[in-house]
Amino acid sequence: MPTPEQAPISRFPVPALSEIPSDIRDRLLAVQEKSGFIPNVFLILARRPEEFRAFFAYHDALMDKQGNLTKAEREMIVVATSNANQCQYCVIAHGAILRIRAKNPLIADQVAINYRKADITARQKAMLDFAMKVAFEAYAVGEDDFATLREHDFDQEDAWDIAAIAAFFGMSNRIANVGNMRPNDEFYTLGR
Amino acid sequence: MPTPEQAPISRFPVPALSEIPSDIRDRLLAVQEKSGFIPNVFLILARRPEEFRAFFAYHDALMDKQGNLTKAEREMIVVATSNANQCQYCVIAHGAILRIRAKNPLIADQVAINYRKADITARQKAMLDFAMKVAFEAYAVGEDDFATLREHDFDQEDAWDIAAIAAFFGMSNRIANVGNMRPNDEFYTLGR
Amino acid sequence: MPTPEQAPISRFPVPALSEIPSDIRDRLLAVQEKSGFIPNVFLILARRPEEFRAFFAYHDALMDKQGNLTKAEREMIVVATSNANQCQYCVIAHGAILRIRAKNPLIADQVAINYRKADITARQKAMLDFAMKVAFEAYAVGEDDFATLREHDFDQEDAWDIAAIAAFFGMSNRIANVGNMRPNDEFYTLGR
Amino acid sequence: MPTPEQAPISRFPVPALSEIPSDIRDRLLAVQEKSGFIPNVFLILARRPEEFRAFFAYHDALMDKQGNLTKAEREMIVVATSNANQCQYCVIAHGAILRIRAKNPLIADQVAINYRKADITARQKAMLDFAMKVAFEAYAVGEDDFATLREHDFDQEDAWDIAAIAAFFGMSNRIANVGNMRPNDEFYTLGR
Amino acid sequence: MPTPEQAPISRFPVPALSEIPSDIRDRLLAVQEKSGFIPNVFLILARRPEEFRAFFAYHDALMDKQGNLTKAEREMIVVATSNANQCQYCVIAHGAILRIRAKNPLIADQVAINYRKADITARQKAMLDFAMKVAFEAYAVGEDDFATLREHDFDQEDAWDIAAIAAFFGMSNRIANVGNMRPNDEFYTLGR
Amino acid sequence: MPTPEQAPISRFPVPALSEIPSDIRDRLLAVQEKSGFIPNVFLILARRPEEFRAFFAYHDALMDKQGNLTKAEREMIVVATSNANQCQYCVIAHGAILRIRAKNPLIADQVAINYRKADITARQKAMLDFAMKVAFEAYAVGEDDFATLREHDFDQEDAWDIAAIAAFFGMSNRIANVGNMRPNDEFYTLGR
Repeated sequence: MPTPEQAPISRFPVPALSEIPSDIRDRLLAVQEKSGFIPNVFLILARRPEEFRAFFAYHDALMDKQGNLTKAEREMIVVATSNANQCQYCVIAHGAILRIRAKNPLIADQVAINYRKADITARQKAMLDFAMKVAFEAYAVGEDDFATLREHDFDQEDAWDIAAIAAFFGMSNRIANVGNMRPNDEFYTLGR
Repeated sequence: MPTPEQAPISRFPVPALSEIPSDIRDRLLAVQEKSGFIPNVFLILARRPEEFRAFFAYHDALMDKQGNLTKAEREMIVVATSNANQCQYCVIAHGAILRIRAKNPLIADQVAINYRKADITARQKAMLDFAMKVAFEAYAVGEDDFATLREHDFDQEDAWDIAAIAAFFGMSNRIANVGNMRPNDEFYTLGR
Repeated sequence: MPTPEQAPISRFPVPALSEIPSDIRDRLLAVQEKSGFIPNVFLILARRPEEFRAFFAYHDALMDKQGNLTKAEREMIVVATSNANQCQYCVIAHGAILRIRAKNPLIADQVAINYRKADITARQKAMLDFAMKVAFEAYAVGEDDFATLREHDFDQEDAWDIAAIAAFFGMSNRIANVGNMRPNDEFYTLGR
Repeated sequence: MPTPEQAPISRFPVPALSEIPSDIRDRLLAVQEKSGFIPNVFLILARRPEEFRAFFAYHDALMDKQGNLTKAEREMIVVATSNANQCQYCVIAHGAILRIRAKNPLIADQVAINYRKADITARQKAMLDFAMKVAFEAYAVGEDDFATLREHDFDQEDAWDIAAIAAFFGMSNRIANVGNMRPNDEFYTLGR
Repeated sequence: MPTPEQAPISRFPVPALSEIPSDIRDRLLAVQEKSGFIPNVFLILARRPEEFRAFFAYHDALMDKQGNLTKAEREMIVVATSNANQCQYCVIAHGAILRIRAKNPLIADQVAINYRKADITARQKAMLDFAMKVAFEAYAVGEDDFATLREHDFDQEDAWDIAAIAAFFGMSNRIANVGNMRPNDEFYTLGR
Repeated sequence: MPTPEQAPISRFPVPALSEIPSDIRDRLLAVQEKSGFIPNVFLILARRPEEFRAFFAYHDALMDKQGNLTKAEREMIVVATSNANQCQYCVIAHGAILRIRAKNPLIADQVAINYRKADITARQKAMLDFAMKVAFEAYAVGEDDFATLREHDFDQEDAWDIAAIAAFFGMSNRIANVGNMRPNDEFYTLGR
């Protein structure tokens, strides 16, 4: 089989580190120090500094906050909805994070392909049912859905968290797909 | 016909102005001074200050920036994709803004219901075709779509703008639908 | 923003009043006297006199008859299904009629965009749930749907009415979309 | 296999001949004289005399008029769109008429199941492509579709005819499905 | 109406009987002796002997085995799912077999077009609901579906049978559609 | 995060090796010898010996035959269509085989999530476009699709191969989903 050259990291031009505003460059270097590489999404969004700052402020507000959802559960939402949106970058990058957070090498692929068959709890399935409804038919979300969440001990603030994560990564999935955003090779094996 | 009581402005509790951090309260008061009322989205998102700040920073980065898209054109993207997502708040609020920006009392309803039949240019239809593809099948966006945009004098940065606006309001539509966010009555008649 | 010329009232040629058979012309003049203008659908369908007569006979049989549905409720069915079918003419013209019949300036936009969030009764939501199922998956309508209607005090004749209105305007939506039927400017502000 | 009792001819009660207004009864008797039986749609719609008269006036205006479409071609439109709408009554009754009009015992089943594989001309396939687009995405019909029709020698009036037939039977399909309208046994073998 | 020439029996070349391996030719001749003609699927698949053998071994394992499903019920599954997949060959050929097995000349057309309105038992409708879910959203099949089957006295082995038949003919439908497989004229009238 | 117990390998009971007919047991032991483990699909299908034999005969006829498609390309078809069908077993097991056949640790995840963004050739993308059309709208496959394949040097036999593989695994995906078939843990890391 002929090996095609690897695609570039984005359809859009990516700035050199020296062109990037210093607050953003600092974040890039910090993540590089921690992870050993700079995830491509940081480089690609850095071409639009204001959008970069808002994107990561929003991301951190949803993914790093305190709350009843564990960090692994938040990543499950990202992975399940991102595969349904066919977003290569998000499934592969957040799949790695999910494996690490859940300390489970199998879970990301399971949740991505069909969360109904994944090794997760009934409560987590209810969480993902709600997240998928937000991603694909938010217009029809109603009292019944909130009642189902309550049966699984998710309160109203948890519902907001699930919805906001599904909605935020729905945005991210669309930007990544339009930009042909390429996941770093490192993500594929992290946590396996 | 029995008149049901008006629904509350959200399914979620809304903070009193006094509970809102001062930087956010200042923004609310500024918009109230300018518009004569506080759009409900400000009050509802204010219950989550960090998310509020990120949301509006992102919003402003996309909607207020310089660029080849006019402000009316950006609102067209919001209105067309928001009706397709069945988001009452976004169609009604941004429909008002579109009427004002375009100085055209008919255009918002036309673009919302079926932009293919609206009194807009062929270039604007191409812009909305792309925005709708981003909203509903971003996974399939490819070189052909960028080529079509170029035929209508949209360059690569314009493509990013269109995509990012469609993606950002796709997020906003989902949050508004889950939150049962109610548009202020004032929006219905603004610019007609 | 360049203002494109307004589109013509239809993709099809429209007859002069003098070319229209007198029974039809009389109806056009009567509606003009009552409303102050001739709705474009009358002019466009007048090019096919037999179809015109059948169309309006059917329309009147469904919309003007006695029955348990109020006139405003019948218009709700038209508005909700027509926006789902992306029919500009029908949403804008019947939105105006709905505002007038319901004496409510907000209701048409609410019902059009997402009736689940509109200021309507639970009974009216059940009516619209049924109408939307008729419009999009009539093949699956069954006893359960009739039972749900009965819980909301809709009897079998009401069910026929709801279904027939949804079906008739489904036809009308398709003809209007194929014909690029343009709503009269007057409709946009009536009843606001 | 246990044989379930045959379903009644409709979910709705059907009037006795004696209860039916005389103009409608005359039509029923005329069709009975010609065909040897009264098609159930006549009996079922007769319960609503005004709707009956409008329905058949519309039907006749579209199906019996002069024009470039042969009567067999009009029936093809009915049969193809009605199977896509899963309407048992319309496929079976109009399938019989199509076999008779086309003097071809195979054509109705072929057109119903997948018209792309039927023994019809390329022109007829273009006609059915357009009819199906009217039935399922009329909102997107545009100049390109009319141009394709012109390449196959369909003019603008033919386009109206195709669209109106697809739209009228879309209405009919929905009413028949909601009413559980049962085709007469005679239709199954007519023209085979 | 111009009569187009009949389409060939497949888009792919079909082998002469003399070119077909003898075990396959024997099966063809046996079916010809029994039915009076060789169904085209045998001729078309014979061009790939190994696939032919596997296909019919699988077919026979599912359709001829002992079990709680009658042979007519198995054919109902084929007919309902094949029309939903728009497979002309399978609906027409298996429609004939269904009429014969069920000794009911009406049932095949009813089940093909809309099984919810067919003269079948509630148990058979539950069987077809499950088969359609397997055909179109197998990823969502879960405990609830098995529970519904049990209420209708279908055990776990019956569920496998229904699923496997729906899945096998889903494969067959796709191959027949890609190959433009033409049903033999004889099938249209068998069992009517 | 609570670790739920791992799900069993199927919703259906699985036979003991001693209960399995010897020809099938021999195949199981052979694959175990070669791979180091028995893939669960062998154990689960072994409960139905005749179906097992037909399934694997068909599988081998399509996947092991000579032809213009490389073995890696055949696995790409499996992986892309199986993720679209949300089949956990097939994506994970055949993803492993694809990585090994293509000697590329990244390719399976890329092809599964969005093959349009994968590191594959334009010819392979055309192959997968065709396979996806077979999987989701085989009824519409026509001459244009074959012409596109020819532009990429796929002849008519290659088209059959692609279609048959997509169709066969569409069957397999449905059976695996209904059976809650669990991929062996070994597959997740093979070839990474």
